[in-house]
Amino acid sequence: MSEPGLLDGILARGAVRAEVDDGAWLQAMLDVEAALARVQGSPHADSIAGCCQAELLDAGRLGAEAARVGNPVVPLVRAVRESVGRDAAVDVHRGATSQDILDTAAMLVAHRALGPLLDDLGASAGAAAALAERHRETAMAGRTLLQQAVPITFGLKAVGWMTGLKAAAARLAEVRRDRLAVQLGGAAGTLAAFGGDGPRLLSDLAADLGLGEPALPWHTDRTRIAELAAALGEACGAAGKVAGDVVLLAQTEVAEVREGDPSAGGSSAMPHKHNPVAAISTRACANQAPGLVATLLGCMVGEHERAAGAWQAEWRPLTELLRLTGSAAAWLRHCLEHLEVDAERMTENLRRGSEQVLREHADAKDMLDVGDAVAAAATLVDRALERR
Amino acid sequence: MSEPGLLDGILARGAVRAEVDDGAWLQAMLDVEAALARVQGSPHADSIAGCCQAELLDAGRLGAEAARVGNPVVPLVRAVRESVGRDAAVDVHRGATSQDILDTAAMLVAHRALGPLLDDLGASAGAAAALAERHRETAMAGRTLLQQAVPITFGLKAVGWMTGLKAAAARLAEVRRDRLAVQLGGAAGTLAAFGGDGPRLLSDLAADLGLGEPALPWHTDRTRIAELAAALGEACGAAGKVAGDVVLLAQTEVAEVREGDPSAGGSSAMPHKHNPVAAISTRACANQAPGLVATLLGCMVGEHERAAGAWQAEWRPLTELLRLTGSAAAWLRHCLEHLEVDAERMTENLRRGSEQVLREHADAKDMLDVGDAVAAAATLVDRALERR
Amino acid sequence: MSEPGLLDGILARGAVRAEVDDGAWLQAMLDVEAALARVQGSPHADSIAGCCQAELLDAGRLGAEAARVGNPVVPLVRAVRESVGRDAAVDVHRGATSQDILDTAAMLVAHRALGPLLDDLGASAGAAAALAERHRETAMAGRTLLQQAVPITFGLKAVGWMTGLKAAAARLAEVRRDRLAVQLGGAAGTLAAFGGDGPRLLSDLAADLGLGEPALPWHTDRTRIAELAAALGEACGAAGKVAGDVVLLAQTEVAEVREGDPSAGGSSAMPHKHNPVAAISTRACANQAPGLVATLLGCMVGEHERAAGAWQAEWRPLTELLRLTGSAAAWLRHCLEHLEVDAERMTENLRRGSEQVLREHADAKDMLDVGDAVAAAATLVDRALERR
Amino acid sequence: MSEPGLLDGILARGAVRAEVDDGAWLQAMLDVEAALARVQGSPHADSIAGCCQAELLDAGRLGAEAARVGNPVVPLVRAVRESVGRDAAVDVHRGATSQDILDTAAMLVAHRALGPLLDDLGASAGAAAALAERHRETAMAGRTLLQQAVPITFGLKAVGWMTGLKAAAARLAEVRRDRLAVQLGGAAGTLAAFGGDGPRLLSDLAADLGLGEPALPWHTDRTRIAELAAALGEACGAAGKVAGDVVLLAQTEVAEVREGDPSAGGSSAMPHKHNPVAAISTRACANQAPGLVATLLGCMVGEHERAAGAWQAEWRPLTELLRLTGSAAAWLRHCLEHLEVDAERMTENLRRGSEQVLREHADAKDMLDVGDAVAAAATLVDRALERR
Repeated sequence: MSEPGLLDGILARGAVRAEVDDGAWLQAMLDVEAALARVQGSPHADSIAGCCQAELLDAGRLGAEAARVGNPVVPLVRAVRESVGRDAAVDVHRGATSQDILDTAAMLVAHRALGPLLDDLGASAGAAAALAERHRETAMAGRTLLQQAVPITFGLKAVGWMTGLKAAAARLAEVRRDRLAVQLGGAAGTLAAFGGDGPRLLSDLAADLGLGEPALPWHTDRTRIAELAAALGEACGAAGKVAGDVVLLAQTEVAEVREGDPSAGGSSAMPHKHNPVAAISTRACANQAPGLVATLLGCMVGEHERAAGAWQAEWRPLTELLRLTGSAAAWLRHCLEHLEVDAERMTENLRRGSEQVLREHADAKDMLDVGDAVAAAATLVDRALERR
Repeated sequence: MSEPGLLDGILARGAVRAEVDDGAWLQAMLDVEAALARVQGSPHADSIAGCCQAELLDAGRLGAEAARVGNPVVPLVRAVRESVGRDAAVDVHRGATSQDILDTAAMLVAHRALGPLLDDLGASAGAAAALAERHRETAMAGRTLLQQAVPITFGLKAVGWMTGLKAAAARLAEVRRDRLAVQLGGAAGTLAAFGGDGPRLLSDLAADLGLGEPALPWHTDRTRIAELAAALGEACGAAGKVAGDVVLLAQTEVAEVREGDPSAGGSSAMPHKHNPVAAISTRACANQAPGLVATLLGCMVGEHERAAGAWQAEWRPLTELLRLTGSAAAWLRHCLEHLEVDAERMTENLRRGSEQVLREHADAKDMLDVGDAVAAAATLVDRALERR
Repeated sequence: MSEPGLLDGILARGAVRAEVDDGAWLQAMLDVEAALARVQGSPHADSIAGCCQAELLDAGRLGAEAARVGNPVVPLVRAVRESVGRDAAVDVHRGATSQDILDTAAMLVAHRALGPLLDDLGASAGAAAALAERHRETAMAGRTLLQQAVPITFGLKAVGWMTGLKAAAARLAEVRRDRLAVQLGGAAGTLAAFGGDGPRLLSDLAADLGLGEPALPWHTDRTRIAELAAALGEACGAAGKVAGDVVLLAQTEVAEVREGDPSAGGSSAMPHKHNPVAAISTRACANQAPGLVATLLGCMVGEHERAAGAWQAEWRPLTELLRLTGSAAAWLRHCLEHLEVDAERMTENLRRGSEQVLREHADAKDMLDVGDAVAAAATLVDRALERR
Repeated sequence: MSEPGLLDGILARGAVRAEVDDGAWLQAMLDVEAALARVQGSPHADSIAGCCQAELLDAGRLGAEAARVGNPVVPLVRAVRESVGRDAAVDVHRGATSQDILDTAAMLVAHRALGPLLDDLGASAGAAAALAERHRETAMAGRTLLQQAVPITFGLKAVGWMTGLKAAAARLAEVRRDRLAVQLGGAAGTLAAFGGDGPRLLSDLAADLGLGEPALPWHTDRTRIAELAAALGEACGAAGKVAGDVVLLAQTEVAEVREGDPSAGGSSAMPHKHNPVAAISTRACANQAPGLVATLLGCMVGEHERAAGAWQAEWRPLTELLRLTGSAAAWLRHCLEHLEVDAERMTENLRRGSEQVLREHADAKDMLDVGDAVAAAATLVDRALERR
């Protein structure tokens, strides 16, 4: 696992970082090579697997050689072949092409990263649900267009957060289960290099690696990447929405919530400030997602049997998008699990806002009835928690 | 239905345009108002429905008034109330808020637009499947990084097109079925204005309009819009990929396919040219999608109970994305249904490329074996067509 | 000028809409054809110019025919030739290609649209400057990360708005002056069809149309479009920043500013609300810019002498970006010219926030000194106003 | 300088990588702190400068602490204060806020990275100019919409590449010269913490660091970042255009150019292939730019005196955009400096295409006259080279 970088504390929080760094990518590629030898029934499969360990290779050197051929698989195969010895070498990468390895590795990396990512996203939704239960009847001002409108409850707001997070998590889980599949096609996708054995290998490789089996090699069909990217973007949007609300509620003049971690939130110039660092960092991560999703959607349009640029342009945005979404989820979990809610201040703000309205619009009285709002909102909270 | 604009022939081909124009949006909003009165059991429901006809209203005037309040629902409600008469007026828009109407209308517009859109996308996939069947054994050069690599068949290429288009269509159909839901919450989403009747109304309104019923009002949870947008972007990517291949195959120097419509493709300066206009126009439409998807993902992050800008920023990109995806699908259908394939030229190009390789690399002979490639590819074509 | 659409009141405010609609594009293309005949010294130049009137043509019909050839210039030229009569027909579009006309028309459209756009942007900056002068010493809370930090003045905030708007306007004016140039190259950009006359025509056409003269036909070099798009995106960002601040200051709990137009801001569900519609609409427009800029940057990468999709994908995003930026500027001007500032509330909010800090951090006293802050801020305001 | 990563050979080629890595950012922040002490006339300025060395600090540890406060400056200041000793500690970061340091550091990083980046971009343009001179009269097919159109010369194509690259380089140089300025404002941008000394410090700090002096602290005005990002995106677009043409010309069936580096271009599955790796990698880098530019434009809209998320979301996209643009420029330089042009093949392709046209359209003869085209194109080449 690589050392965390200068900004990783903020932009790469949580366990996803380690699942998408260079070492993780390298190991994923090596896992594919090892599995390929295995499902091809190579008598050297075990010793090949023994050499397919990321720590035995020098990522930097591979990277430098990768520049000569345009992808890191060529030097990786060469390195594995060298270390495995002459007899076994021929069974390394047999019949495969670089894109088979890299695309399948991308799926493995995504599959692995989505584990902790979904944990953190689920925990965030769980924390929102807990807030909703606890504040089922905590009245507060509903705010539309950032103006106080009519009363709601904090429970309703929190259960709305939960719903968005759960929808995003459900979609991500669905993509993980249904759309992360092995890629194996050989030089141009016919599987011809595997003789009649191709379709069986496709199936066995999928089973070996715990990924899906595609009907067809998908090197030219990037809908899987697109759906993964979109689901990550959706998760960032759902997380960013919650974080945005927290930042707004934490404003000095509103002060209805406060991030609870007492060790955090200081300022270099103003030691007295208490900043909602977790919510802010969630947004910092989530804000970067739409542009990356756009890049990955743009990369769907590749030329013929392998894109001359669009394929290679996927690697970093996909990595970054996994990392940022993981970080957003980890930050949001931290934020919501430690969120301090000031129910009294909510009541107070609501009362003040309503009085102000009623001074000018006495006829708005019915709309501002708190009891009705709380009752209606509580029904919705219960309903949403039941159906979750 | 509005008159087509100067560029609509190119950028808004097909039946989707009419489903997303101003009149369609207006009618969708009116349909929601009519349905709302109906499910609320208003004795005036029929006369309200009678007044909820887009052609009775002046879109331009509504638009001008919309500017004063920030959305078109306020003047629309006023206009309907005026036309329906004093007694019924109180039953128009009762308990609802502007966003309820607009969000539900957006879902209706999307639902309706996805009808012809999925038809055209499905027909494109069907045309690709037909090409795959017909050219199951038509050998051609596989091209990676735009260099001839090893032989494939045109059937394999076409079935790969089909797979991508079908995946995108399946996702869009799934979003249409599972994620297009009514929005009803009242002023700030509690349903309080409907008394205890809110949840039932949610359910009845969904049934009346043929949309889904959400667990919770979703005004603050834009995952539905995000998934719709992403699925549209995916469809554009899948269509763009196919169109890109067609454009490349149609190059003068390659000349393996040609768009068949003899009336099309002329040039203002060069009457002798035959341009693949359908494929080019598919790309023109599809290229615009990633940026629009990014905008809509960015709009997920709205403030509290109604976003002050992010909500309003959704309307046009969503409309445009539906229109462009519909247009891309319509163009691609036209392209593939009329595609002329020159199998002889494919053979000829493959032979020339192979000879060139073999002059320098005699040992590449096995890789370039056409018979093996055709057999392997045909197996894959059959498999993909069976599983479709 | 086309009728305004349902959402144009919100998303297409101001005078730019009329400069970028179908009629404006059509007229711009016709202006190029007329000018081309003129600078070529055609004896029929006057009668050609007489036929080059948008109102004589049917945009919808041209659009339908445009679909057959992939651009609207081919049918436009045919229509002009028909109306001008057989003798003059040969002098219409002589030596030019469709892209010459469309690219030059795009520059004309942009040049014309930037007139009112820069007016509104300049007026916005002027209104910000006036606020800065008026509130040179109006103390308010500085807010970092949406927490009260140390005192600033409203004048300083407003002059910061001015600086951003002025920078964006300066860049747009620079692009307008230096980068909007005629495109003329003929079929593939050699100017060969004009004999030795090409370079002179380039120069004369530029002079005739009031656009720049490029060193080279720029059909393959889209840096001009990119710079225009980026400058529009920058203007939207600068406007969006100001509008965002206004929305935040107008929050019920902050209430330091209020949009002054008494006829605006109502709600369909809550007649008592006063929403900052102008600021919200500014954001609604500005939010859509980054995605459109990304699309246009992506379109820079076109194939050889004319892109097969990327060129055609520019037309709508460019139009939309001009319209939205114009709309954002018009809304912001309206917002700032009618902004009501509640200086007392600013003082009150600042006092309350400071007291809260001082209860816990008595040593923050120096940082919270209002007099020092006002003096320092006033110096900066003066400096920025002087250098504007 | 950090070790290159697995994909850096492809995605972070050239000298820019080292100018934007963690060490470079750290040193830039330290340079700002050292300069600040210096211009404030601290008697400890030298010893502070002595401690402001990136290699004395542990980036990973700073990063971990950064997570607690939301930015890396707070722990960096603490570390420098500790190492500089108690007396000098008070002169470290005096009056400044984290954003002052980070924003100014961003400008320094950009300024430094743009050095080698502009070298590579300039060398690319130079290589294109050399190709234009050498092939001033090399006839080839002009291709519009990827169909052969009329003759051009390779010189004209290459000089068009040059023009785009030069325009982008000129814009970047302009941004570097005019828009990279120091940021200094103190806690909320008033400069109050510096007493009356603020404006002088702004000026001296700018002079010390070799950056511009702003009229106003620009923490709230992100037009500088926007212009930098846009100019980088433009450079990527210009580079991507050239690379795209090279990839198309290098197609097996066209074969008019070939990347000359004999050590590069191999394939893992097909050792016989010669792939245009440099052009492909240029595209791989350039393709990622539009999404990053969109992210940075979106970040312009920050709240009040410091954005709660949008500011923090700038750091990585800006770094990545600099790195990718640098990499694209380095790859393109390599590509163009080693490009092998097959003039005979150009002639041959042109002849074949023309014959094909003339079989069906004998009247196109004039348009296809090679001599006229070469003469006209040569005039344009000369003109563009003169005006460069």
